[in-house]
Amino acid sequence: MTGAASPVAREVLLARAYLSRVAEPPASALAALVEEIGPVEAAHRVREGTVHGPGAIPPAVAGETAARRATDRAEADLALLATRGGRLVVPEDPEWPAMALAGLGVAAGVDGTLGLEGASVRDGLAVPLALWARGPLRLTEAPRGWVAMVGARAASDYGLWVARDWGADLADRGKTVVSGAALGVDGAAHRGALAVEGRTVAVLACGIDRAYPPTHATLLDHVGRRGLVVTEYPPGATPARHRFLVRNRLVAALSAGTVVVEAGARSGATRTALVAEALGRAVMVVPGPVTSALSVGCHELAQRPEVTVAGRVAHVVERVSEVGDGLAAPPGSPTRRTDGLDPDALRVHEALPLHAARTAVRLAHDSGVDPTVVATLLSDLEACGLVGQEGGRWRRRPG
Amino acid sequence: MTGAASPVAREVLLARAYLSRVAEPPASALAALVEEIGPVEAAHRVREGTVHGPGAIPPAVAGETAARRATDRAEADLALLATRGGRLVVPEDPEWPAMALAGLGVAAGVDGTLGLEGASVRDGLAVPLALWARGPLRLTEAPRGWVAMVGARAASDYGLWVARDWGADLADRGKTVVSGAALGVDGAAHRGALAVEGRTVAVLACGIDRAYPPTHATLLDHVGRRGLVVTEYPPGATPARHRFLVRNRLVAALSAGTVVVEAGARSGATRTALVAEALGRAVMVVPGPVTSALSVGCHELAQRPEVTVAGRVAHVVERVSEVGDGLAAPPGSPTRRTDGLDPDALRVHEALPLHAARTAVRLAHDSGVDPTVVATLLSDLEACGLVGQEGGRWRRRPG
Repeated sequence: MTGAASPVAREVLLARAYLSRVAEPPASALAALVEEIGPVEAAHRVREGTVHGPGAIPPAVAGETAARRATDRAEADLALLATRGGRLVVPEDPEWPAMALAGLGVAAGVDGTLGLEGASVRDGLAVPLALWARGPLRLTEAPRGWVAMVGARAASDYGLWVARDWGADLADRGKTVVSGAALGVDGAAHRGALAVEGRTVAVLACGIDRAYPPTHATLLDHVGRRGLVVTEYPPGATPARHRFLVRNRLVAALSAGTVVVEAGARSGATRTALVAEALGRAVMVVPGPVTSALSVGCHELAQRPEVTVAGRVAHVVERVSEVGDGLAAPPGSPTRRTDGLDPDALRVHEALPLHAARTAVRLAHDSGVDPTVVATLLSDLEACGLVGQEGGRWRRRPG
Repeated sequence: MTGAASPVAREVLLARAYLSRVAEPPASALAALVEEIGPVEAAHRVREGTVHGPGAIPPAVAGETAARRATDRAEADLALLATRGGRLVVPEDPEWPAMALAGLGVAAGVDGTLGLEGASVRDGLAVPLALWARGPLRLTEAPRGWVAMVGARAASDYGLWVARDWGADLADRGKTVVSGAALGVDGAAHRGALAVEGRTVAVLACGIDRAYPPTHATLLDHVGRRGLVVTEYPPGATPARHRFLVRNRLVAALSAGTVVVEAGARSGATRTALVAEALGRAVMVVPGPVTSALSVGCHELAQRPEVTVAGRVAHVVERVSEVGDGLAAPPGSPTRRTDGLDPDALRVHEALPLHAARTAVRLAHDSGVDPTVVATLLSDLEACGLVGQEGGRWRRRPG
């Protein structure tokens, strides 16, 4: 899965690699030109930089590319990528997540405002020119079963707990946890998924060769080896505030649904949620105490008609499935062992952690199900082979 | 406002007082008979107890009244009520909250299920035969501006804080806080309203002469002197589990909206919310930590399309106003001093407690509004006369 192994013609890869550095994303005009005349011709014309006569580039493209058009590091970038075991995924490649990203182009062309942030959200929705990727997961799977978990960098213990626990639970249910590798909620969500050997995708706001934040270098290494690290920025690109915002559209677009775990009144996570809404994806918020400034953004988002509240992981799974079903034909939809359980039994089952045992009393407390009913439900679950007990403590039975 | 001062004919009051004791609410068949032939004739026939021939009562009414039809304490009940400064409010009285209760009869006749609890909710929606009341507030005002706050008896500190703080805030904004005088959320909501000398209504599941729970005797005394204590149960009626559930329909019906502050997976508060939904009233839940068993019921209710999340008091006020506007023509709708403020300014204003001063930094923290913006907003609010400062600390200016 290195750049050299790409099924795409070398000149296309080189053209896309050049174009991906020459304009700062989101580059709507350049994206439109590439769409119109193809990457090789577009790269040629941008390099020439002619603004009048035959082979001229439109003024908007000239504006987007003027500062960097002389910088062509495509060969070196692809070589570097290959040494890191990465690949450049481009629209000409079957791995290109065409379905996931299609909405970006459409939404970018929509007139009218998108709510809280209005036109500023829409203007940034250009389709990326290429995606620098590293890791065994394939982008073409997105957005089906991909769930974004986003939230505050300065998350509370509560937010970190939810991000990690739900990240693990979603991954354990076969979902792919998408986030931005930032401090706080992002990192906890990735770690939760990795902890159960699940699937997780980090979308960066910098070059794939950079570890940002530096304290997440090991985390990014793990994600790259077991999941996927992806970015539209060329190698060496430094993280910058506006890049985080631009990157967020890819987090939203690559996912069937976005879960905002914690967010202040104004936050990048809220913006990601608004993009997801604009793309017709599921937007969910994790509720928190109304006394917490870090849940204000979640509760404000919850005022929007399309945004739902996720009180437990099952709410996320249900919502993402609904939306996901609208995005793609199910490739033989997997059944879960807990399908068909009644809601109380499901709740008791969910209250059981993945790798620890619990007493019935504790399960009643954690699930909120009447203690007198829990015993019966546990017997039922045991009969289904979903749980087992030893010494009065119950645990999940592996599938 | 004693029974003797009622504008209703004495024989009607006596008939309603008798009927209110003779059948256990909700008494759908008896309510229908009274509706058909009037309370005086209905009381006469029930007393006679004839089940065949002229003047017979329908079998369903006979069933509802068989156990107690010989018990007529109407004179004594009205006399007792008068000594307590109470009054019997009946449909023949202009004070009868006809608009608030009209929905009960309609909803009781609706076919189909009402969601979580199905028919069991619907069956209990009979209109009360009379309301025993004590206090200066008039029932005829309901449901406009009446907001129910309900929730767990074994509430957490968080739930108690929200109930009390929001109860005070709602009352301070001119709303009437309706609840059931129970331990936990109910009591805290009443106390919050009383603390700002606001309006509050306690709907009891026992006779108006009884203080239940006993530790709330003083609270009920305060509510009765400054707000309203009301019940459909005759004097001496003891609180019982089924009466709490039956009473809950009146809490929902008397209110334009119901706010569930904290609720376990199954709770009386959830039932009240479902009745409110069935009546077309606003149903709101206060979010809480997903890790709290006492917020599970709130988050489950939030899965219902008609239920909204209230992250702050303004969300309640907005929602109740929307629904309230559909329930009645505004009797010259009061304007608030904060009408027309932009959302951030409103948030900063709301972050100011009623009777304490705050620094701008603290207000930025509590409101979640960008600290660099807060200073400007405070100047704007000061210019409007809504806030004032002294020594770098800001406080609300009384209206």
